[in-house]
Amino acid sequence: MKNDLLLTNETAKILYQSFAAGMPILDYHCHLEARDIAEDKRFRSIAELWLGGDHYKWRFMRACGVEERFITGDAPEAEKFKKWAGVLERGLGNPLSCWSHMELKQYFGYDGVLNERTAGEVWELCNARLSEPEMSAKGLIAGSGVKLLCTTDDPADSLLWHQKLKAEFSDPKKRERFPVRVLPAWRPDQALAVQKPSFAAYMDSLGKAASMEIGNLSDLEQALEKRMLAFHELGCRVSDHGLERMVYTPVSRNKAEEILKKGLGGGAVSQEEAEAYQTYLLLFLGEQYHRLGWAMQIHYGCSRNNNSRMYRLLGADTGFDCIGEESPSARLIGFLDALSGEKKLPKTILYSLNPKDNEQIDSVIGCFQDPETGALLQHGAAWWFNDHSAGIRSQLTSLASIGCLGNFVGMLTDSRSFISYPRHDYFRRILCGLVGQWMESGEYPYDMETAGRLVQDISYRNAVRYFGFDQDSFRL
Amino acid sequence: MKNDLLLTNETAKILYQSFAAGMPILDYHCHLEARDIAEDKRFRSIAELWLGGDHYKWRFMRACGVEERFITGDAPEAEKFKKWAGVLERGLGNPLSCWSHMELKQYFGYDGVLNERTAGEVWELCNARLSEPEMSAKGLIAGSGVKLLCTTDDPADSLLWHQKLKAEFSDPKKRERFPVRVLPAWRPDQALAVQKPSFAAYMDSLGKAASMEIGNLSDLEQALEKRMLAFHELGCRVSDHGLERMVYTPVSRNKAEEILKKGLGGGAVSQEEAEAYQTYLLLFLGEQYHRLGWAMQIHYGCSRNNNSRMYRLLGADTGFDCIGEESPSARLIGFLDALSGEKKLPKTILYSLNPKDNEQIDSVIGCFQDPETGALLQHGAAWWFNDHSAGIRSQLTSLASIGCLGNFVGMLTDSRSFISYPRHDYFRRILCGLVGQWMESGEYPYDMETAGRLVQDISYRNAVRYFGFDQDSFRL
Amino acid sequence: MKNDLLLTNETAKILYQSFAAGMPILDYHCHLEARDIAEDKRFRSIAELWLGGDHYKWRFMRACGVEERFITGDAPEAEKFKKWAGVLERGLGNPLSCWSHMELKQYFGYDGVLNERTAGEVWELCNARLSEPEMSAKGLIAGSGVKLLCTTDDPADSLLWHQKLKAEFSDPKKRERFPVRVLPAWRPDQALAVQKPSFAAYMDSLGKAASMEIGNLSDLEQALEKRMLAFHELGCRVSDHGLERMVYTPVSRNKAEEILKKGLGGGAVSQEEAEAYQTYLLLFLGEQYHRLGWAMQIHYGCSRNNNSRMYRLLGADTGFDCIGEESPSARLIGFLDALSGEKKLPKTILYSLNPKDNEQIDSVIGCFQDPETGALLQHGAAWWFNDHSAGIRSQLTSLASIGCLGNFVGMLTDSRSFISYPRHDYFRRILCGLVGQWMESGEYPYDMETAGRLVQDISYRNAVRYFGFDQDSFRL
Repeated sequence: MKNDLLLTNETAKILYQSFAAGMPILDYHCHLEARDIAEDKRFRSIAELWLGGDHYKWRFMRACGVEERFITGDAPEAEKFKKWAGVLERGLGNPLSCWSHMELKQYFGYDGVLNERTAGEVWELCNARLSEPEMSAKGLIAGSGVKLLCTTDDPADSLLWHQKLKAEFSDPKKRERFPVRVLPAWRPDQALAVQKPSFAAYMDSLGKAASMEIGNLSDLEQALEKRMLAFHELGCRVSDHGLERMVYTPVSRNKAEEILKKGLGGGAVSQEEAEAYQTYLLLFLGEQYHRLGWAMQIHYGCSRNNNSRMYRLLGADTGFDCIGEESPSARLIGFLDALSGEKKLPKTILYSLNPKDNEQIDSVIGCFQDPETGALLQHGAAWWFNDHSAGIRSQLTSLASIGCLGNFVGMLTDSRSFISYPRHDYFRRILCGLVGQWMESGEYPYDMETAGRLVQDISYRNAVRYFGFDQDSFRL
Repeated sequence: MKNDLLLTNETAKILYQSFAAGMPILDYHCHLEARDIAEDKRFRSIAELWLGGDHYKWRFMRACGVEERFITGDAPEAEKFKKWAGVLERGLGNPLSCWSHMELKQYFGYDGVLNERTAGEVWELCNARLSEPEMSAKGLIAGSGVKLLCTTDDPADSLLWHQKLKAEFSDPKKRERFPVRVLPAWRPDQALAVQKPSFAAYMDSLGKAASMEIGNLSDLEQALEKRMLAFHELGCRVSDHGLERMVYTPVSRNKAEEILKKGLGGGAVSQEEAEAYQTYLLLFLGEQYHRLGWAMQIHYGCSRNNNSRMYRLLGADTGFDCIGEESPSARLIGFLDALSGEKKLPKTILYSLNPKDNEQIDSVIGCFQDPETGALLQHGAAWWFNDHSAGIRSQLTSLASIGCLGNFVGMLTDSRSFISYPRHDYFRRILCGLVGQWMESGEYPYDMETAGRLVQDISYRNAVRYFGFDQDSFRL
Repeated sequence: MKNDLLLTNETAKILYQSFAAGMPILDYHCHLEARDIAEDKRFRSIAELWLGGDHYKWRFMRACGVEERFITGDAPEAEKFKKWAGVLERGLGNPLSCWSHMELKQYFGYDGVLNERTAGEVWELCNARLSEPEMSAKGLIAGSGVKLLCTTDDPADSLLWHQKLKAEFSDPKKRERFPVRVLPAWRPDQALAVQKPSFAAYMDSLGKAASMEIGNLSDLEQALEKRMLAFHELGCRVSDHGLERMVYTPVSRNKAEEILKKGLGGGAVSQEEAEAYQTYLLLFLGEQYHRLGWAMQIHYGCSRNNNSRMYRLLGADTGFDCIGEESPSARLIGFLDALSGEKKLPKTILYSLNPKDNEQIDSVIGCFQDPETGALLQHGAAWWFNDHSAGIRSQLTSLASIGCLGNFVGMLTDSRSFISYPRHDYFRRILCGLVGQWMESGEYPYDMETAGRLVQDISYRNAVRYFGFDQDSFRL
């Protein structure tokens, strides 16, 4: 791995080395399990760490003709790793090649190329290294420079592991050993999934978590409020929503109640009804987030489980999702305008999986920026299929050209892996490359102190300021 | 401001310095007021000039957390300016940063960086400079190298100020002091807005302007023809249409008449009816433009006034518009084909606010190019949210790759500001950068004379030839 | 033409010179006529070769104001050529400029710039050269380094010329003179065009080709199977479909039969019915391709014959087509999933004419990669209006970022011209430019042997492996 990886101009090298590289990490959206962190999970092999749950790599292996046995099947881990090593070199221009080598260097000190010929030595090296004390969940996180991270949690979750992590953080001696704040993030997708067969059962468990029964809309709202309070007390300041597409079909409270009851009773809910119910609940939740000062993340534009045969075999999140349709801005505008009209629009971060939406999102958020009501909108970092150098450059360029890049809250890993933090480094290098380019072309003044400060803001400080997490988390 | 701003290769520097830089400006579409020019308006401060009506800057300030009081509110101008200066540095990659510094250099001789620390000195410097004699509307226009500009005018406008400007231009002594031709451009959006409450009242004033009453479709057509003649006599050769989306719903004359009468009577007109009426009238107007030799500009893909609360407070054009949906090509093709089938398609320039439409537009115009009937179609310059270096490069690259860049009529300011002419310079530099890149990579022959001549054509001469303005305007 | 054309970094130069440049060509999709090859057609002039059927050039000339008489009309060839030479220089950034000069250099040894001034000397030089013995159809193909090419053939075609070409290839002495395998490719668009007036007549000729009558769906399937067998025996391994948009409206066999009979009887078939019938037949064909080991190419997103007046004058394929709407992924997913669910999805190559579909296609194909059933999906090379340096870079970048570039089957000419093979060279140079850039930025390891081998794979070997053509074709 070159030291000047992705730093394709001289100014970028200065911006990166003097300003960006040393900033801590605030990873405000990831999919790590609080339990794994609390229990300080250890890893038996690089295969477990890399191939255990990473559907990015699974897809790539399938495209390279690797049999499923070596991907999600029962082949021995060493063989799976060898298969992975054998195809990686075909990934010209794929971020998996870059990320893998960044991770090998940062966590395992390996500076060579991983391929079929080196697979054996890398396997040995990594597994040996994984047996060292600091290579645990906590060690990997803290050693990566992370100051704070947010997991992704269901409202019905008991948050037991988060309570444990909070308690540890409050104990100065324990905090010294793991000086990282781990917070829950609120992801109520199941409460919105009124058309799913599992909805009624989910409402049961949500009710239990809130120590009440959910029989109507008021109950549901009350249960959600109680759980939000529990999340808030543990430091949560971020919500997240995953929608196939952005919805906005406003209906009366009576109509929403009717659809909810249909869902609770196990009745068939149409797509139109589901979107109406979701609109109602999203507006309710948006108001709550505004009241609590939380940020509302909305991820949309994903078409999931497209390969029915493999879905029956392997279930969800196994590498068979794709970019969905682009989202018409009308629904997005309708939703934001409804909350803004009531002065109840929270801080909002929008992510579309369809990169065609970039420019539109940047022009839409500009219509609802309102510092006086706390509505400060962001276009989220390049997500999933867009999380690569070209996709990151597109998102940053669109945001910079149409909105205000200097205020961007920046990168997140969105990852299930304990060694994905180099993606922050990857992002910062690309950011410095772009800013350096604008400075060298003269589009932005050649004022290194200012540009460097802004690069630091985007790398870390904007997120600290934006989300309003307990400032104690950063006083270390 | 660097001399080689945006000139990112050696060939670009030659093309720019030897060919593009010295060309005059023909600004065929802007939003200056003829009255301000005729009265040779003066400006009390840089805040008035920069912040008085520029919703690009307002949006940026809102995104940076500036309170509305300092944007459109009653804060003193000096404070507004200081707020603007304080946030500008956050605009990494935003054209506002580049344009502002270009304008400070060209009009005020200021070569430093505008920020919170320099706000005071820039405020003093600019305001002092604005008191100098040549810093009036006419002085700024003529001093920018403009040979001809087209304002944007309603058919019901009396054109009194344009008559005055024409008279001045006909007087050799006055022409010497202000050797710039100022022409009206025809923008009949209100005559098309049959679904708006203000429609009947507008028809009244249009009738008055044409000295007749408008009670039916023939009346309307006659009134429009009379006004077109009045515009034509003052030198107008360009029309413009702003549509939320491109329409094409052909209907019978009877049906169009019926919808018109509904509109005249204040009845509710459905979206479908409105589009049918608009289609009918656009076809009528297209034929007239063809007959008169006018160019038809169509701007589409804008979603306006998206923030209802702020619309109630501040009205239209205050920074709450966004990129609308992309436009299916079917309606565009239908419209162009209908006029082309009758050999009545005028010169046409298409602008979509959605950059996703670029490639489609370039492939559509290629289907209707017909020198024998005068139908020469253009893909207009990157518009509004696309008017930045990345957006200009996208539009130019798409046009070059799919159509014929050498025939492009080039840049326009589309601006309400008297000091926005550096945008022509900005465009030319980007153009030279691209052409230089193609020459250096070998994609285009390294023939500097030819490339330089074409860059000049695109910068100025193509527009002179395309629009057919009175050639006397350019003989100075 | 520069030797380092398009090789914009040092690594690209090494990759190209040491690895890509020397690779043979496998042109798996073109529109040459088998008869012209078998008869070893000769060309009376560069105008015939260049302007006889090239609607890319016709469109460009129209956009430049050339009268139709000099394009498709009765003007003398020398004048047409002069007109073409006169406008070519306006094509800054257009691939026609680059391709034309590449062709002049490679086939005619002309290293200058073609323009109005040089038109006469180029005309003389090219025509003199065309009289030399090797400048025939076969000579041009073999001299271009082509090992194998696939024409595009209708199922009703007798394949007589392909039989002749196969016989020649089997004769060692004849093969020595023309060591190129020419294979048919299966394009059953007319069998799918149930809504066209010509459908019943086409079914007649298809029946005749299969020595049977087609009165119902079983007949049609049997006839297609018989013809597929005939194609297969002549070495065909590739099918191709041209669809205005991707279809997926599954219906029962009975319903499909009903629509077919309507079409056979000359009844009016609605758009919805046509798509249902097409879905049924595409699923049938997909299964057959899977059984035979053929690849299924699907080209979609083209809107054809948009200029009605010119269509009446000149007919189809005369330069009046454009990029159609983008394709929602839902239909694409539905189609692929239906075949995949039955483990009958063939190798599939998807091409959309709308470049907005790139990222979506790359994410969709990743959901259906299945080496165990033979389903290996590809995102086809940048097609038609996208076949230029920017479009090729976009397709390659999207494929690389989201899928696996190392497995790409690469370039094809898609051309009607005998001297369009430099487009493979154009593609390889752009490919080397991108790969070199990733290596120099550090995104891909700087391992020249590996990168060079992959560049060769993409240039040639992946196609050899993917399509499963008779390996004897490559043993020369």
